[in-house]
Amino acid sequence: MRIAVLGGDGYCGWATALYLSKRGHEVAIVDNFVRRQWDFELGVQTLTPVQPLPERLRTWREHTGKTIDSAVGDITDYDFLASFLRDFEPGAVIHFAEQRSAPYSMIDRKHAVLTQVNNVVGTLNLLFALREVRPDCHLIKLGTMGEYGTPNIDIEEGYIEIEHNGRKDLLPFPKQPGSFYHLSKVHDSHNILFACRIWKLRATDLNQGVVYGTVTEETALDQALINRFDYDEVFGTVLNRYCAQAAVGHPLTVYGKGGQTRGFLDIRDTVRCIEIACMNPAAPGECRVYNQFTEQFSVLELAHMVKAAGKKMGLRVEIEHVPDPRVEAEAHYYNAKHSKLVDLGLQPHLLSDALLDSLMNIAIEYRSRIDSSLFLPRVNWRNATNDRRQIAAAGAAVPQPGS
Amino acid sequence: MRIAVLGGDGYCGWATALYLSKRGHEVAIVDNFVRRQWDFELGVQTLTPVQPLPERLRTWREHTGKTIDSAVGDITDYDFLASFLRDFEPGAVIHFAEQRSAPYSMIDRKHAVLTQVNNVVGTLNLLFALREVRPDCHLIKLGTMGEYGTPNIDIEEGYIEIEHNGRKDLLPFPKQPGSFYHLSKVHDSHNILFACRIWKLRATDLNQGVVYGTVTEETALDQALINRFDYDEVFGTVLNRYCAQAAVGHPLTVYGKGGQTRGFLDIRDTVRCIEIACMNPAAPGECRVYNQFTEQFSVLELAHMVKAAGKKMGLRVEIEHVPDPRVEAEAHYYNAKHSKLVDLGLQPHLLSDALLDSLMNIAIEYRSRIDSSLFLPRVNWRNATNDRRQIAAAGAAVPQPGS
Repeated sequence: MRIAVLGGDGYCGWATALYLSKRGHEVAIVDNFVRRQWDFELGVQTLTPVQPLPERLRTWREHTGKTIDSAVGDITDYDFLASFLRDFEPGAVIHFAEQRSAPYSMIDRKHAVLTQVNNVVGTLNLLFALREVRPDCHLIKLGTMGEYGTPNIDIEEGYIEIEHNGRKDLLPFPKQPGSFYHLSKVHDSHNILFACRIWKLRATDLNQGVVYGTVTEETALDQALINRFDYDEVFGTVLNRYCAQAAVGHPLTVYGKGGQTRGFLDIRDTVRCIEIACMNPAAPGECRVYNQFTEQFSVLELAHMVKAAGKKMGLRVEIEHVPDPRVEAEAHYYNAKHSKLVDLGLQPHLLSDALLDSLMNIAIEYRSRIDSSLFLPRVNWRNATNDRRQIAAAGAAVPQPGS
Repeated sequence: MRIAVLGGDGYCGWATALYLSKRGHEVAIVDNFVRRQWDFELGVQTLTPVQPLPERLRTWREHTGKTIDSAVGDITDYDFLASFLRDFEPGAVIHFAEQRSAPYSMIDRKHAVLTQVNNVVGTLNLLFALREVRPDCHLIKLGTMGEYGTPNIDIEEGYIEIEHNGRKDLLPFPKQPGSFYHLSKVHDSHNILFACRIWKLRATDLNQGVVYGTVTEETALDQALINRFDYDEVFGTVLNRYCAQAAVGHPLTVYGKGGQTRGFLDIRDTVRCIEIACMNPAAPGECRVYNQFTEQFSVLELAHMVKAAGKKMGLRVEIEHVPDPRVEAEAHYYNAKHSKLVDLGLQPHLLSDALLDSLMNIAIEYRSRIDSSLFLPRVNWRNATNDRRQIAAAGAAVPQPGS
């Protein structure tokens, strides 16, 4: 199958592109490298030293004999995107090409606007380009479990049957996103559902949980294929950050009470879920929603798991509760359905001691690259302006959230 | 009370600004006149000859002794908006400053992107500016009943209590908007709800029905105060269009079966609802949603009412069903709640024969300004590109929708 991976130089995108290539698909990566630019802006770097895309692709070809195409450009540039689709003629497009960090979107107004405009316009362009150029191509769009927020009822996969005053309808599940980033994904979901309805496009909206891990069978082939491992407060996901903290003897920073419960999954399941979606396309006019995660944990539970794993390895790991920089419930009901991908064949890699050991070992291996000043939250949801630049430049003491 | 009316040169905004000024409030209008520019783009003009804003404001002052301030600029320019709020120090901001036409948003990709970026960024800027400059100011935002679509259950005012698997929560009512314009309002609603939650802003989101009428007590004072009356297929609302059609002996163009049922209200109720919202502000952190309409009709019912009114006046009025250019249910269940504004004191002007007569008389008075080629729909939801410009320039026969 011919598969385009938009955002294929990023964390999930890169692992996905390699996995699909390995499985015999003809893969093209579209990326504008803005994710690398954001590292420069924030003064951070991935724990693992990632190579430039051409070097990555050359290494992949050397090891596997497989070529992954690449097109360098921005999908908010419609002409570029349409011409790519016309040339590559994909059967499926995987859309990872969005600003994906909640804290980044909450830095200030400009970052909020950038996030929503970038994500909404990129997705609108993709919908129009599919309609005009590849109307039968299957769109696989990465959404987030964060679109749902934390309602006091079970979370269904995209739609819920509501009975009200004696009548019934199957309606989009109500959304309560918790950042301008999560809001951008909600906007996308509404736009995609509408485009499927009016233009009979095929779409799968994957509401993904928080991804952890960095190694897949493919990225492990060569040091030059290594994937990102973000541990900083802006782009780092929680489990990766905990492991980096444990590796350098920094307390694990649990936000607030730590009862915030979310869906999580191993990056090896991310890539498999994407392939499952590709091989089971949505029907014309159908906008399917799958909740893409395998287990749910509270962030405090994860901290205790990392602490236990560290102890086994002889590391002394402390847990520290810091004021929650986000506005969110710190203890709440959470029960989200996630059976549709399993029904289609997903066999989850559940979070195990072995995986935690492996993550910790990576963090220890690259420990010298860790900048501990990047652990503590400096983007507070309650502020309209969080001046990260000044703080980072001064190297000053990190102010407490809420200050 | 000091009240800012963003988009105060437009159809609802102008009537609102005058009404609030008359009632003794200190009013400022913010507008960039892009609505007038869109008339030029589309080759259309309002049935009623509207004067430039300075002329309107001078006339108002002459008649009433009251001054309405004005600030010319675009709210997508944050610095302009923030500086206006800092100077004017409003207690309430009424936000009409959005692209408000569904067909306009469906012309092509550029119009869809313009609509969503303009509306979303303008509203984001307003939320940030309120947070930074006037955190206690009450935001009154115009949404639309079209955010809900036509679910098979009763439509509540913004929120619905859902019982599911033995648990309950009060959640945002699921949204199924029917155009890229309506989607932009859904995006706004989600952004506003979030901003109230994290920043304790006060907001009232008014999901307004389709507005009809043009005359209010204030605009009737002088010819130079006359309000817009749009009858074209892009910006014209359905009842206004029917009256213009009846006035020139053109068949009333009912889209499809005509069972499309919506909430409607008289523009005299629009202005009163806004004042009610101003005088009963939302609490800090509260995002209230009111459904702002007074009666529901199907578009075919309205056509029959206009036909009957025309007959009384000696006009021979035909009803013609044209293929529906929109993708929407042409017959459906519809029952939307709208009691909250009535509870606060709204006394509706229901659609009466007298009002229809008055609308028809206006259409007849300005009949010489009517261009019948603007009646038929030329923006088809099923197309990704509707080349209105070419058609208008050629003055050629109007193609049927769906072609």
